[in-house]
Amino acid sequence: MSTNTSGHITGPADLVTALRHALGDAHVLTGADAAGYLTDQHGRLTGQALAVARPADTAQVAQLVRLCRAHRTPIVAQGGNTGLMGGATPDASGHAVLLSLARLNRVRAIDTDNDTLTVEAGAVLAHVQQAARDADRLFPLSLGSEGSCTIGGNLSTNAGGTQVLRYGNARELVLGLEVVTAEGDIWDGLRGLRKDNTGYALRDLYVGSEGTLGIITAATLRLHPLPRAQHTALLAFGCIRDAVAFLSQARAGFGASLTAFELMSDTALGLIARHVPEQPIPLALNAPWFALIELSDSEGEDHARQRFECVVGQAFEDGLVTDAAIAESLQQSQALWRLRDQALGEAQRRDGRNIKHDVSVPISRIPDFLAATAALLQARFGAVRPVAFGHLGDGNLHYNVSHAPDSTPAQLFAQEDAIHEVVHDSVHAHGGSISAEHGVGQTKRDLLPRYKSAVELQLMRRLKQAFDPLGLLNPGKVLQALPDDLPHDLPQVSPTPAAAFQEGPTP
Amino acid sequence: MSTNTSGHITGPADLVTALRHALGDAHVLTGADAAGYLTDQHGRLTGQALAVARPADTAQVAQLVRLCRAHRTPIVAQGGNTGLMGGATPDASGHAVLLSLARLNRVRAIDTDNDTLTVEAGAVLAHVQQAARDADRLFPLSLGSEGSCTIGGNLSTNAGGTQVLRYGNARELVLGLEVVTAEGDIWDGLRGLRKDNTGYALRDLYVGSEGTLGIITAATLRLHPLPRAQHTALLAFGCIRDAVAFLSQARAGFGASLTAFELMSDTALGLIARHVPEQPIPLALNAPWFALIELSDSEGEDHARQRFECVVGQAFEDGLVTDAAIAESLQQSQALWRLRDQALGEAQRRDGRNIKHDVSVPISRIPDFLAATAALLQARFGAVRPVAFGHLGDGNLHYNVSHAPDSTPAQLFAQEDAIHEVVHDSVHAHGGSISAEHGVGQTKRDLLPRYKSAVELQLMRRLKQAFDPLGLLNPGKVLQALPDDLPHDLPQVSPTPAAAFQEGPTP
Repeated sequence: MSTNTSGHITGPADLVTALRHALGDAHVLTGADAAGYLTDQHGRLTGQALAVARPADTAQVAQLVRLCRAHRTPIVAQGGNTGLMGGATPDASGHAVLLSLARLNRVRAIDTDNDTLTVEAGAVLAHVQQAARDADRLFPLSLGSEGSCTIGGNLSTNAGGTQVLRYGNARELVLGLEVVTAEGDIWDGLRGLRKDNTGYALRDLYVGSEGTLGIITAATLRLHPLPRAQHTALLAFGCIRDAVAFLSQARAGFGASLTAFELMSDTALGLIARHVPEQPIPLALNAPWFALIELSDSEGEDHARQRFECVVGQAFEDGLVTDAAIAESLQQSQALWRLRDQALGEAQRRDGRNIKHDVSVPISRIPDFLAATAALLQARFGAVRPVAFGHLGDGNLHYNVSHAPDSTPAQLFAQEDAIHEVVHDSVHAHGGSISAEHGVGQTKRDLLPRYKSAVELQLMRRLKQAFDPLGLLNPGKVLQALPDDLPHDLPQVSPTPAAAFQEGPTP
Repeated sequence: MSTNTSGHITGPADLVTALRHALGDAHVLTGADAAGYLTDQHGRLTGQALAVARPADTAQVAQLVRLCRAHRTPIVAQGGNTGLMGGATPDASGHAVLLSLARLNRVRAIDTDNDTLTVEAGAVLAHVQQAARDADRLFPLSLGSEGSCTIGGNLSTNAGGTQVLRYGNARELVLGLEVVTAEGDIWDGLRGLRKDNTGYALRDLYVGSEGTLGIITAATLRLHPLPRAQHTALLAFGCIRDAVAFLSQARAGFGASLTAFELMSDTALGLIARHVPEQPIPLALNAPWFALIELSDSEGEDHARQRFECVVGQAFEDGLVTDAAIAESLQQSQALWRLRDQALGEAQRRDGRNIKHDVSVPISRIPDFLAATAALLQARFGAVRPVAFGHLGDGNLHYNVSHAPDSTPAQLFAQEDAIHEVVHDSVHAHGGSISAEHGVGQTKRDLLPRYKSAVELQLMRRLKQAFDPLGLLNPGKVLQALPDDLPHDLPQVSPTPAAAFQEGPTP
């Protein structure tokens, strides 16, 4: 409740009325109409909201924020609702307004001489990719949910995906932003500049802040030339160290043409062989590690093939690569990517739910991390099966843990928290991150104090306090919603993460 | 003055004594010993300091910050003292401690499998480049002062240079930081991770903050493979639009192998011909625009040459390139780079001081910007001569203005402020930035309110307040040092920069 301009107390119903007046009745949803927005895509988390509001443009977003602010009402921004950490799902109180950015979906401008595309936050990623392609350019962000996730959501979570090795995370793909602040002001930072050193990095700060510091309404994106040819192959390695060594050779030999290096364990491919028999696997599964690699060439098909044969041929001679299946057509290339994307996901689903981790460690420490973590899991939980795959070129592993063959997913999930702790503690001990590309949201929020120093958490809390002093922007996401900014409210952890881990209770 | 723990008032002399005790007498300089640190490299700005302190390591930096904080004494951090905006020069009050990071210059670690190098802030850039080369890797940051600037200074100003087109600014070359906060705490963010989405972008915020939010003491840098071959050429263009069109073709044809595209006007090369006759210029100066381009190849000399001939040959056929001098040896390549770097600088010095601008505009708007700005200068100031050159691939021009042939530098500088305003207003009208790669420091600080929205300045001020509530870190740099954070202390400007410009007094 709050006081309106004429001095009367107003309540939630008045806010809904004001939103309907501002956005139109059809764009403020309640009851059954709102339900689709309140559960995350996995169906694991469900929240409640006062209303779901669907503004048409940036001015309406700003107006909505000012109305909610006047009513001291929290705002949860949502794009395609494909996030994996519950960042776009409100809490159960029903106090918040869910702000859907889906109607802000226009391409505002494309500039091929500047290689930039300006687009609104609610545009679906696949449409953004297509708009770039239509202008003979590449927007390289690519991930599983690209058919329904939005560019605003991608930026607010600093999304990664399969092309980071060459083009960087979402943060590196954006030059300018338009943002509505917690006060309902519009920051017009839509600059199409590759160099601008006139102040603090507001753009980089908003990217990855998951709607907790401001609401991204539009972005000026960086485009790249379309490659002239692509070459894809599945390679087999005798051990993980050979895969890491080959990555280094491939980076030197292919330069920036190496656009993907997707690692998969034999266990991961074995799940596909067992549960998705319709998916061809072009190599015998008699090696422990495999990688899908992709070369994107600016010259043409012949040069791509010749480079490929030169670098991979050398690795064969050196004994680093033990087997290879090279795609000879676009169809074969697409089949390899289906193996990595859809089939691997489907195989895990059919095998029964598993316990997922999205982690990164320095590439040089991946072999030790894999060995140590598997040993820790075996010692503590017996025959559970790590299903490891991910973006080796970025040090990013999706390290999932499946139930033991003689056990069930339900028995596995009874130990979920302990398994998370073993994996995350091991990540931390190897200098890694417990969220490489999925963000924090609500799911990993309470894990941060175990792995981040008190100094860092305090700096983050100060940023939140500075940009959202009333705590109305996506409260309880990334950081706990605290009544004030005092450091003594934080869990006590050592300021040195590595030491904190070594002294921790359950390494 | 402040109160010490036993309740006695302590003063500046006590702080110097405490610093000597903490760092050793030899590392706290006053009087004549301090003078070299208090004038900027151009000799234009001179400040005063209570003392110059040279800590040995991060712990001593933290101790120094805590001591200064207890005495409410400002701290001005300095690396190689090569900045161009006065960011590392204290004010004239003599109240501040100048913190030289020169002794923190160790390489802490190099990891070739992870392609990272961890180095302390005071390491000279050329030494960092060499440490990478010694490990068969490239650290691509490259700029004129690399023999004396430090990596800490490069990061605190988000330095650019000649390889940004391919590798990005300093911000894109760093994975992790170690920072001493305004409280004297140490934030250990030295992560060698390409993906880490566990909170706000502290790293990116500290980079480019010019010592006003924290003091960078070490960094984990991102390394790249060394190219196998490089190919350099000087090309001539019949008009600036052809140069922009060729840049687009070169990006498509060379892909990421295009590592430099350095534009120079005929006026710029003409100054070299006149004032530096010992420098060969391999093309006739009968075209208005020239560019030094560099191709860095991951295959070898033959492939580089063949690619070069293919792409440049096509541009010749299309009439985009009218003349070309291709370096046939390493010596010829170095001579071309000397033309661009040392000779161009020397020619301007011998021609007499000029009025410098480091600006960027979207690449697509460079032709209009150049035509409009030249016309505005001519209309207002007669025969002054724009000397334009810079990093076309980044939209970054060094747009310098020289005195008219029948005039003197002194007559030119009598109109310095008005000339700055005409150029910067034109940059702003073309969607550009008044500081592309040199930062703000003290020199451009008071220009920001003319070109930045009130919303953006307010957000910047909140960041400063959140990270440095006592205002002790490099006060008066980037932002004015204000007694509080109230927006009414800011100059009144329109929240929409373009409109503010159009309504401004002197377009």
